[in-house]
Amino acid sequence: MTIKVRIITPHVTPRPQKIEEVAGLNEFLNVAFSHVNLTIGPPSIQGMFDDGFATPGIVARCIEAERDGVNAVLIDCMGDPGLDAAREAVSIPVLGPGETTMHVAAMLGHKFAVVTVLDQVRPLLEKHAKIYGLQEKLASVRAVDVAVNHIGDDPDGLLARLLEQSKKAVMEDHADCIVLGCTGFLGVSDRLQAALHQDGLMVPVLNPLRTTASLAVALAGLGLRHSQRAYARADISALVGYGALFSK
Amino acid sequence: MTIKVRIITPHVTPRPQKIEEVAGLNEFLNVAFSHVNLTIGPPSIQGMFDDGFATPGIVARCIEAERDGVNAVLIDCMGDPGLDAAREAVSIPVLGPGETTMHVAAMLGHKFAVVTVLDQVRPLLEKHAKIYGLQEKLASVRAVDVAVNHIGDDPDGLLARLLEQSKKAVMEDHADCIVLGCTGFLGVSDRLQAALHQDGLMVPVLNPLRTTASLAVALAGLGLRHSQRAYARADISALVGYGALFSK
Amino acid sequence: MTIKVRIITPHVTPRPQKIEEVAGLNEFLNVAFSHVNLTIGPPSIQGMFDDGFATPGIVARCIEAERDGVNAVLIDCMGDPGLDAAREAVSIPVLGPGETTMHVAAMLGHKFAVVTVLDQVRPLLEKHAKIYGLQEKLASVRAVDVAVNHIGDDPDGLLARLLEQSKKAVMEDHADCIVLGCTGFLGVSDRLQAALHQDGLMVPVLNPLRTTASLAVALAGLGLRHSQRAYARADISALVGYGALFSK
Amino acid sequence: MTIKVRIITPHVTPRPQKIEEVAGLNEFLNVAFSHVNLTIGPPSIQGMFDDGFATPGIVARCIEAERDGVNAVLIDCMGDPGLDAAREAVSIPVLGPGETTMHVAAMLGHKFAVVTVLDQVRPLLEKHAKIYGLQEKLASVRAVDVAVNHIGDDPDGLLARLLEQSKKAVMEDHADCIVLGCTGFLGVSDRLQAALHQDGLMVPVLNPLRTTASLAVALAGLGLRHSQRAYARADISALVGYGALFSK
Amino acid sequence: MTIKVRIITPHVTPRPQKIEEVAGLNEFLNVAFSHVNLTIGPPSIQGMFDDGFATPGIVARCIEAERDGVNAVLIDCMGDPGLDAAREAVSIPVLGPGETTMHVAAMLGHKFAVVTVLDQVRPLLEKHAKIYGLQEKLASVRAVDVAVNHIGDDPDGLLARLLEQSKKAVMEDHADCIVLGCTGFLGVSDRLQAALHQDGLMVPVLNPLRTTASLAVALAGLGLRHSQRAYARADISALVGYGALFSK
Amino acid sequence: MTIKVRIITPHVTPRPQKIEEVAGLNEFLNVAFSHVNLTIGPPSIQGMFDDGFATPGIVARCIEAERDGVNAVLIDCMGDPGLDAAREAVSIPVLGPGETTMHVAAMLGHKFAVVTVLDQVRPLLEKHAKIYGLQEKLASVRAVDVAVNHIGDDPDGLLARLLEQSKKAVMEDHADCIVLGCTGFLGVSDRLQAALHQDGLMVPVLNPLRTTASLAVALAGLGLRHSQRAYARADISALVGYGALFSK
Repeated sequence: MTIKVRIITPHVTPRPQKIEEVAGLNEFLNVAFSHVNLTIGPPSIQGMFDDGFATPGIVARCIEAERDGVNAVLIDCMGDPGLDAAREAVSIPVLGPGETTMHVAAMLGHKFAVVTVLDQVRPLLEKHAKIYGLQEKLASVRAVDVAVNHIGDDPDGLLARLLEQSKKAVMEDHADCIVLGCTGFLGVSDRLQAALHQDGLMVPVLNPLRTTASLAVALAGLGLRHSQRAYARADISALVGYGALFSK
Repeated sequence: MTIKVRIITPHVTPRPQKIEEVAGLNEFLNVAFSHVNLTIGPPSIQGMFDDGFATPGIVARCIEAERDGVNAVLIDCMGDPGLDAAREAVSIPVLGPGETTMHVAAMLGHKFAVVTVLDQVRPLLEKHAKIYGLQEKLASVRAVDVAVNHIGDDPDGLLARLLEQSKKAVMEDHADCIVLGCTGFLGVSDRLQAALHQDGLMVPVLNPLRTTASLAVALAGLGLRHSQRAYARADISALVGYGALFSK
Repeated sequence: MTIKVRIITPHVTPRPQKIEEVAGLNEFLNVAFSHVNLTIGPPSIQGMFDDGFATPGIVARCIEAERDGVNAVLIDCMGDPGLDAAREAVSIPVLGPGETTMHVAAMLGHKFAVVTVLDQVRPLLEKHAKIYGLQEKLASVRAVDVAVNHIGDDPDGLLARLLEQSKKAVMEDHADCIVLGCTGFLGVSDRLQAALHQDGLMVPVLNPLRTTASLAVALAGLGLRHSQRAYARADISALVGYGALFSK
Repeated sequence: MTIKVRIITPHVTPRPQKIEEVAGLNEFLNVAFSHVNLTIGPPSIQGMFDDGFATPGIVARCIEAERDGVNAVLIDCMGDPGLDAAREAVSIPVLGPGETTMHVAAMLGHKFAVVTVLDQVRPLLEKHAKIYGLQEKLASVRAVDVAVNHIGDDPDGLLARLLEQSKKAVMEDHADCIVLGCTGFLGVSDRLQAALHQDGLMVPVLNPLRTTASLAVALAGLGLRHSQRAYARADISALVGYGALFSK
Repeated sequence: MTIKVRIITPHVTPRPQKIEEVAGLNEFLNVAFSHVNLTIGPPSIQGMFDDGFATPGIVARCIEAERDGVNAVLIDCMGDPGLDAAREAVSIPVLGPGETTMHVAAMLGHKFAVVTVLDQVRPLLEKHAKIYGLQEKLASVRAVDVAVNHIGDDPDGLLARLLEQSKKAVMEDHADCIVLGCTGFLGVSDRLQAALHQDGLMVPVLNPLRTTASLAVALAGLGLRHSQRAYARADISALVGYGALFSK
Repeated sequence: MTIKVRIITPHVTPRPQKIEEVAGLNEFLNVAFSHVNLTIGPPSIQGMFDDGFATPGIVARCIEAERDGVNAVLIDCMGDPGLDAAREAVSIPVLGPGETTMHVAAMLGHKFAVVTVLDQVRPLLEKHAKIYGLQEKLASVRAVDVAVNHIGDDPDGLLARLLEQSKKAVMEDHADCIVLGCTGFLGVSDRLQAALHQDGLMVPVLNPLRTTASLAVALAGLGLRHSQRAYARADISALVGYGALFSK
């Protein structure tokens, strides 16, 4: 049984390297990945406005995935946009890297920190930790002060900034696990963990895309889906003005 | 100085009686109300799917209101859809009756209960109470088991059901204030409070539309608006696929 | 309908400028203010001892206000002395600036800070935030280290100290709203907000007297009062040794 | 070294049996008890109004006790009236049975219940549990529905009601310790514990007067007093209108 | 890459069916299971005494597993005995079904309930939920009142009791996911979920052994282990009196 | 009535000075102390591994104490190892200095800090504060960075480090009480309190052994023991492989 997982990048900017980031999971999981992004929505997710205008497109992509026979969907953003709306629209598991990676990090130590792009997304991540019930396990949210569309500009500089904030999270905030706080931080989690270990800070670094993709396979393989009692099925046909989105 | 407040009903179904519900506030506030609903979105708000598809239309209506010189906006639904997204889009106060009425209720006693339409919206209201910081003041969320589009069918029956659940909230859940949990419960708050008092339960009943409209006037009159540090200004021009919504 | 609001300064030191601080509210509220202070009690409120010896006088002033036909009472101190006792003694709303301003601040952003006079009142304000259910919304309590009776000595120096602590509250404690933490800080809230904005910190500054007075008008206008179930009516006639206080 | 402990009954009604209730402690503690009540104040403590009008008299009695060479003071009411005010006025430990007994109960099991006189004092006890940090250890507050001045009317009936509520606290609320919730419940704690054990509910019953008196001896014997940093010393001489109270 | 997972049953009673319960996971995970129980310890885990006397044997089995080249260890009991001690003794992931299944359940709905064997283990599970940070996601712990060594006596009766308590958890406690609360409940999770769905309660039922085994594979496959900063390496050679345990 | 209290040092290293530390309590308590350490277990308690291998020996010593006619037992370590297991094994009160001293500290001010040996025990103490319900009263856990077996090397140096961390706890973390965080800190509590007072920080310093021994006398004297409903009686006879431990 091969589990089909679709990664939905929740904005209109193409992000072709996502499949590559999770490719290694095939070594221990029977999984096949596919990847799409949105046709309508914001260019990136940097707040609740972006979340709001991404949600219709995300939901449409989830419905399409279910129609395509996909077994689980992963919304590719630490802000978990559209998560609840999508769960009301489909019968397959819909996972967000924010929720998933924070729960896994909570199992690996006493407190974790999230190291993300900009300080302006801190309140959103803190709010989600509170909703997910993980507030007391969250040591801090720290930012490297690099905008999403500049993540790839200077890989070594980015690593240095991630290392600096991760060390502060451990030494000052008492974190003992680090969660990479943006799914756009590609190819850097192993290097960051190695750098922390070299500096004597023996903490795990969680890669949100890989962690969430693994859990998506596990949930689908176990035959689990989100509680329909928690997420009552929505009536798509009653919507006014979104015909074009669903006619595709 | 007359404060201009616009009530935005966050779905496509017309609700003409809203202005009437708040008309009495002119006796002690210098306020002028206007009212609109959405052109695209769901027929009502019954979950996070509806919230997701209502948000683009709500934000567009808020931007329109600011352009019209309105001083404060009230999103007419206890589920507070689109609240954060709208606050990132405009410079005037944007109020939700869920957040506002729960905070005012928290000042009137030790614990309040919310009596709403259907049990399926309970998790959403509980989640909001947690985000707003009011979890410990919320005694319970109870439902009368009447769908939104049947609220007006049997006014006396509705009052009886509201009274029954309110009494249970007081006697079993230790609530000492009652928040009407749907802005579609029109013309019933005073009757419910009188019925409770007649039965010896001396608790206030909060009307969400009137309470929120009063606070909207207060905030606008005091020159207050939502923190721009909490709600960073969004870039509307970067959206793809929503041109029709904003060209109106 | 003009709402009559009485400001009760809860100590024996005259504070004549209070009416002036709230005068501007008449522009959007139909309100008439009156003002008294105590005849017995402490010279200021700096702890629970002062609170304890102020309470009998506060309650007597609230009973007098109700007898005078006042519609709502405001106890003029961020420490909210005598609040619960007074609510058990009268049938009109009794508001405290601590409770009221913290709830309104909670609606304007993710977290607020209170900037007050002396560090010794911090535990009291933190305790109140916990009781009011707002603990998680309170980023910090900071003090300018100026005693109450020296607030008026150096207005520019005070503004500079308020600005310094407010900036630290925003930058270090992640506050995105500022609550002025003493009702003796007169005429400074607008200047503080302007100074913060000039320094690029776009956060609202809440004036406790004006905010609480507005809410007092709103509650009285809406016909709301504190829950009699939360605040059972006390029997004044059974008191021994307080005859002089009530015979006035 | 004999520790001198004074019991201050915080109202004007004489309660002569208090010394008798704690007499047995001399078997294992070197302690000498004295007992007073108030000359001004309410006839009993049934709410925050009573608390407010009791506090000046309580503080005066604490100052008198310190002047008399007493080593520790016990305020004889589960509502802990005047506790913080008194701690700002004297240098000897001031204990309240609410705070003390709840902390000791918290050490004897996972959750405790408080069984008290009337449901109207429940919010006060819940508020105190929250302030003392014991909210999560408090299973419930239950009431026998007997007013303070009728406690002595029917001892067997009272025991039956205490037993009924204690059993419900264990079976329905998951309490595994019972705190007697009024210091006026005299001579009944051992009988209640025996009755619960006879019914197979092997839970301890805490007598608030005895528990608090023991802790008063322990604190005084250990040379501990309340933190002066938490309770800054108040200036009694600045009070206006309370001369008669302190001239005694 | 095949992930080797060892199931350690933390008591001295053989439980041969454990491998069978997880056999189906091979369909989507590359995993090989092995299974052992203890040579010294209690006959089952029913409290903290059992936990205390099981821990030395569990730790010894974990050290043995690491020496055998196992990639991850699963301690086969919802009470998670010896979890922290074992993590200080080995460098491979050590998972407990209590912690793991509760975190996964937290992702599938708003609140989950744990349905377990006896009410006497409720406090332990509630304590663990608090430590794991999941207190607010735990709707309730309910028991079927069947001792561990009688689980297999009457499979249909057990299913009926699990169904009864699960329904109450959903209807009365607002749970929307069910966690089977004992790893001795073998072969019943799918039947319980089917029975709930047939009764119209569309909630997922989590099988703790399968869920935890899947996560063990995921963590080991991702190269993750518990934070060494959270779990400092213990010095086994300094122990006195446990030579026989480690000489095996 | 003389209360017999046994101090059980929970490891195999002799600590002869313990009786001396509590000798002064005889001045106000009728108490007789005895003292033992373990024959099997770790050389000290520095984590959960040590806790796990100490627990069997602790339980055996508690059973022996009860057989010897002891009235209460004190487990001599701030980490409270074996506390719950022991309470399931005997009928006399079993006290831990971590739980007891934190509860007493909670009564002496608003927030307390624990100043301990090494930062690696911080998570354990924080976890215990959470379980005991005292999380919100704990300002911080700070460490002097001295290993347990070096505490006696340099008494003046140790005092200086304790003073430094205690001052930071007061000034930076808002603690107003200090709990000595290791029962191996002998003969230093009075000197530390005097040094803090000399520096103007009027906070109490709690000696964990003396505080816990006093409470042990109080509980035993009051006839209280831990709830048997919270701690169900364990069946020692069913254990496999621990015969030698109990045959002594």
